Amino acid sequence: MPETSVSSPTKTVTIGPDHPFVIIGERINPTGRRLLAAQMGAMDFSRVQQDAVAQVAAGAQMLDVNAGVPGADEPAILAAAIRAVQEVVDVPLSLDSSVIEALEAGLQVYQGKPLINSVTGEDASLERVLPLAKKHGAAVVGIANDERGIPATPEGRLEIARKIVERAQDYGISPNDVVVDPLAMTVGADHRAATVTLETVRLIRQELGVNTVCGASNISFGLPDRLLLNVAFLAMAIGAGLTAAITNPLEETLRKTVSAADVMMGHDEYCQRWIASVRGAAGRDRPSRRRRRRASTGER
Amino acid sequence: MPETSVSSPTKTVTIGPDHPFVIIGERINPTGRRLLAAQMGAMDFSRVQQDAVAQVAAGAQMLDVNAGVPGADEPAILAAAIRAVQEVVDVPLSLDSSVIEALEAGLQVYQGKPLINSVTGEDASLERVLPLAKKHGAAVVGIANDERGIPATPEGRLEIARKIVERAQDYGISPNDVVVDPLAMTVGADHRAATVTLETVRLIRQELGVNTVCGASNISFGLPDRLLLNVAFLAMAIGAGLTAAITNPLEETLRKTVSAADVMMGHDEYCQRWIASVRGAAGRDRPSRRRRRRASTGER
Repeated sequence: MPETSVSSPTKTVTIGPDHPFVIIGERINPTGRRLLAAQMGAMDFSRVQQDAVAQVAAGAQMLDVNAGVPGADEPAILAAAIRAVQEVVDVPLSLDSSVIEALEAGLQVYQGKPLINSVTGEDASLERVLPLAKKHGAAVVGIANDERGIPATPEGRLEIARKIVERAQDYGISPNDVVVDPLAMTVGADHRAATVTLETVRLIRQELGVNTVCGASNISFGLPDRLLLNVAFLAMAIGAGLTAAITNPLEETLRKTVSAADVMMGHDEYCQRWIASVRGAAGRDRPSRRRRRRASTGER
Repeated sequence: MPETSVSSPTKTVTIGPDHPFVIIGERINPTGRRLLAAQMGAMDFSRVQQDAVAQVAAGAQMLDVNAGVPGADEPAILAAAIRAVQEVVDVPLSLDSSVIEALEAGLQVYQGKPLINSVTGEDASLERVLPLAKKHGAAVVGIANDERGIPATPEGRLEIARKIVERAQDYGISPNDVVVDPLAMTVGADHRAATVTLETVRLIRQELGVNTVCGASNISFGLPDRLLLNVAFLAMAIGAGLTAAITNPLEETLRKTVSAADVMMGHDEYCQRWIASVRGAAGRDRPSRRRRRRASTGER
């Protein structure tokens, strides 16, 4: 079974089908967050640090850090953001940029073994990102698209994933250090979007034996009442073999669904973590609410 | 692809991997419901009829009817309950009993093509239930256990399912009319319980090509905060190929998860049913709640 280990100076997280599902907190990303973008652009990382602490407190085992502020010095901001985040939390980070200089700057300051997010199947991307991953001993997310775009079929995505894994091996990077993103498009635009993603996850596990990671909220883009769509998709993807997701751990229902899916996958023996998490939540309830609940367990 | 059609005098429901997931309402069952048991024992079916109407209103496409009142005349009660239910709702029914005389009495009064719940892989069960199913043109639930109990492995359950499907064919019953129950044991007692069920669903689809149905709440028995455990399991099972579940449609989160899973499986083209169901729910909101929601969509 594949195992992808990433680390901070004090903590190692292992992604793999024999391990609990890994939530990578998505919140540190200026896209669509005006206040955060303005602060990051001004090299103020107080909100970034708050987001880091809140996501880890909510149960994120890793955090994604993206510094794509339009018109700003992304390499400098990403490096500073990583420093700021590593000051306040001890989870491993995913360095998220499509700008090679930003990845380079981030890798120089990162303490531990990070996840690089990401390389695609495009030759230009492979040739620039993979040597960097090798040089810094990082793991890397490989996205299943290339020069021709995103394949419509699971088999097409598998072939790109295979190319990425093989090319990584050419650079001396173990398949354990490649985590494939099968790509989740929105079901609102194509009703086969989710089944293609789920089948891609199954195929990649079966044919390549590497780990998978997915952005779990794009699937419901543009639709109403997105939470339960994301919940259903994430549970189904974990059942299909998905090993990690970049998502929002502050969404309690989503985070609890991941814990429930861990129970179902046999990754929470004696359900100890599940029971402890429920007890923790009950401890935060006010007594009056608990009493009301007890009173409503009779016949309905 | 397998298709299991069942019917009432006016409505046909088709269970199958190319169709929306079928919820079979579980509420008409005196087990653990003292008031309902007392009424059914006294041949009073007013609560049964209320439960029937409520479950169909909540979205159940079929209803399970169980009349197992301890010490009572089960054949007479089941027949009368079926008559009472068919008076008030038009969905097809599942006739639920382990007593052959009760099934016989129920089949005699049922109008349409019902689902018999159930036959096991035991010879004694097969020899009594299958001729009855053939005689009345009913579909039948085949449970993956036999004289030796419930196999611990998916392969063991597959073999019993294969025996049931083959024996049904010997009696002239098409595999389309056999729906296998892969059995969901409780994860609280065995942390592999869910993975065994999910793998059994996949194997049965792949090897036998028949439909599957499952009781979806037993999985979380004895654990706290069961709803999200059931939600995660049901979504994962639908992703693995499960085609129907006997469950409680009055649990709104569970029912909505099934709708969300239908979207993910590509069974809700253009997400029309999803969008309509959300609009329906919003229409029931009071204006003040809607306003509050709109106000909270800014940056968090």
